[in-house]
Amino acid sequence: MSSIKSAAVEMATNATKAASPIHPYYPLDVEIVGYLANQWPVPTLLGVFFGGLGVIFYTTRVLVKRQNPQMPKGELLTVMWFVLCGFIHLFFEGYFAYNFKHMGGLQDLFGQLWKEYALSDSRYLTQDPFVLCMETITAVCWGPLSFVIAAMITYQHPLRYPLQAIVSLGQLYGDVLYYATSMFDHYLMGITYSRPEMYYFWGYYFLMNFFWIVIPGYLIWDSAKQTAKAFSTLQKSEAGKFAKKAQ
Amino acid sequence: MSSIKSAAVEMATNATKAASPIHPYYPLDVEIVGYLANQWPVPTLLGVFFGGLGVIFYTTRVLVKRQNPQMPKGELLTVMWFVLCGFIHLFFEGYFAYNFKHMGGLQDLFGQLWKEYALSDSRYLTQDPFVLCMETITAVCWGPLSFVIAAMITYQHPLRYPLQAIVSLGQLYGDVLYYATSMFDHYLMGITYSRPEMYYFWGYYFLMNFFWIVIPGYLIWDSAKQTAKAFSTLQKSEAGKFAKKAQ
Repeated sequence: MSSIKSAAVEMATNATKAASPIHPYYPLDVEIVGYLANQWPVPTLLGVFFGGLGVIFYTTRVLVKRQNPQMPKGELLTVMWFVLCGFIHLFFEGYFAYNFKHMGGLQDLFGQLWKEYALSDSRYLTQDPFVLCMETITAVCWGPLSFVIAAMITYQHPLRYPLQAIVSLGQLYGDVLYYATSMFDHYLMGITYSRPEMYYFWGYYFLMNFFWIVIPGYLIWDSAKQTAKAFSTLQKSEAGKFAKKAQ
Repeated sequence: MSSIKSAAVEMATNATKAASPIHPYYPLDVEIVGYLANQWPVPTLLGVFFGGLGVIFYTTRVLVKRQNPQMPKGELLTVMWFVLCGFIHLFFEGYFAYNFKHMGGLQDLFGQLWKEYALSDSRYLTQDPFVLCMETITAVCWGPLSFVIAAMITYQHPLRYPLQAIVSLGQLYGDVLYYATSMFDHYLMGITYSRPEMYYFWGYYFLMNFFWIVIPGYLIWDSAKQTAKAFSTLQKSEAGKFAKKAQ
């Protein structure tokens, strides 16, 4: 009986091990459903990702220059930024929103890229409610709208500046909450989602997301400035008309 | 020895009971630090709260009418809305952001009001990272900016529409995430933060927050429409000037 019992205990232990395998993510005891280690080396993953961004950037530049050769450099860069955002939000973050339940075991390009990134923030592999909700809104709303703004800038649509402010604030607010929630857990609850090697924290978690603080921040300011200028000009021109009529 | 041991066990049990007292919030086993039951009856609490909102509404209306008697009704209502938001964000939500660590034991007006509201969402008493971060940003950013917009509408400042879109989107996005995170926990994780009586869920959690979906949604649309109209008018007037010069 005793040997049967010990065999049963061993089986149960193995079953538990199989259900929650060892992984490199923090906190180390966090459960990651069906975890499989990445198969591709890190330089390959990062090379394909940044190479892809480069192709998107270059193609956008060529297409917009062909459509509107006189476009000022700042406007061209803004179009390139929003096309890049559109691709990242809709496809890369959309991939996460769609697959959030079993991210730990995915082995295609985006799956492995997310597992590499998650070394700096394991919430992407643990069905975190805030990260999922924020990423879903980003993919569904800010993704398609980023492409719309890129087109609006190219064709000088009058809705361009309101939409630029809306999407940029959506990105900025989502990102601030993204930083804030994990910093709350780190400093107040003592739960850390990043591996201890500092290049994960500073290179992935801080730097990659910091672009979505600085650039949307600038674009909100730009939109507010241009809009205020437009209303100011209109107010002056109406005041001028009124004065002429009064004469 | 045995009686000493059992006395020690009893003391330890009582100490545990004292550390996590029984409370009416859901999930029933959630820990609420230093919980004390409300002392004031619910009609008094709600009466003071809605009475206060009434006073803010009425005073704003009188002051704005005195400053700008010709203000259209829609504009006046928008000013009243933003003043109301300013007070709620800065003082009521600011109170939560400041006291989030020990909300369960607070017995002043705002403390008891939050404990009454938390019957529909216990995250306000459990140091939830998302709710704290969202409420802090709401109190610190959207609170003061709501007062600024109210003043800008009154004095027809050219920055009014950009700021109206920014603050309204901040409110809308925060509220959508607020709903989404708890619905995620409810439907996917089986964790419910509201008491089972439906008037808590529909009256407090759903209805009170739904105002911040509908009204900001309308104000974003209004801001985008007015801004597009302004840019459109300017574009036409510039095209007109260009045509005149060309003649």
